[in-house]
Amino acid sequence: MRRSTLLFLILVVSFAAPAQTPAGLRKMLDDQTAAWNRGDLEAFMQGYWHSPEVTFFSGDTIVNGWEPTLQRYRDRYQSGGKEMGKLSFSNEKIEMLGSDAAVVTARWHLEMSDGKKLEGLTTLLCKREQEGWRIVHDHSS
Amino acid sequence: MRRSTLLFLILVVSFAAPAQTPAGLRKMLDDQTAAWNRGDLEAFMQGYWHSPEVTFFSGDTIVNGWEPTLQRYRDRYQSGGKEMGKLSFSNEKIEMLGSDAAVVTARWHLEMSDGKKLEGLTTLLCKREQEGWRIVHDHSS
Repeated sequence: MRRSTLLFLILVVSFAAPAQTPAGLRKMLDDQTAAWNRGDLEAFMQGYWHSPEVTFFSGDTIVNGWEPTLQRYRDRYQSGGKEMGKLSFSNEKIEMLGSDAAVVTARWHLEMSDGKKLEGLTTLLCKREQEGWRIVHDHSS
Repeated sequence: MRRSTLLFLILVVSFAAPAQTPAGLRKMLDDQTAAWNRGDLEAFMQGYWHSPEVTFFSGDTIVNGWEPTLQRYRDRYQSGGKEMGKLSFSNEKIEMLGSDAAVVTARWHLEMSDGKKLEGLTTLLCKREQEGWRIVHDHSS
């Protein structure tokens, strides 16, 4: 094979291959799930960009900012006898948009201690911030 | 002012300025709203990537593909005496992710002929395809 042909093939394969999920993004997502499943909302919230500009869409409600997003989770899953349940995901798709941004889509599942199962969908815009990969926008339903 | 200083300042301003919304993306979004408001679902659907890979998330339902997405809109807004209403958006934010991708978030409003008002939220992943800017993923609630 001529060297130029080999080079051409290498280039084709490089561009045709789907962008790999960065290890830091994978770890952030997995750390979030693990934190949820040990009932540690503060650790779970480390996956979100710690900024007043982070946005959380749910139903027809917009929550702006990291602290209000934590408060929403507390109200919904930790107040008055509520429980967080066991979190898992299916149908996960990660689409890289350049090297510093990705959109993650998935179906979320929550299994409660009484066996009750909840599920819904999530779309996460994730960006590589100075501190690492973070969710900057979450739309869940 | 030295020429190198001027060049430096121009560079700083260029990189600090928020990425402008491409005209093609703006037009696609505006054309969609106009098409909806004249009751033309097929024209509205031109804003979506014409692919089996386009995804539409609503509530806990995933719709895959352009035709099934059109059918969902038909079932919901054109069948059995249903109406499309007048569509508008507020709180629109467009975040450019490189030059060929963007995430659009907004609150949607529908005003029906009897005065009834519906509203919810939408997150759109838009990409510059060969045929122009298209929605490749829609999460609405």
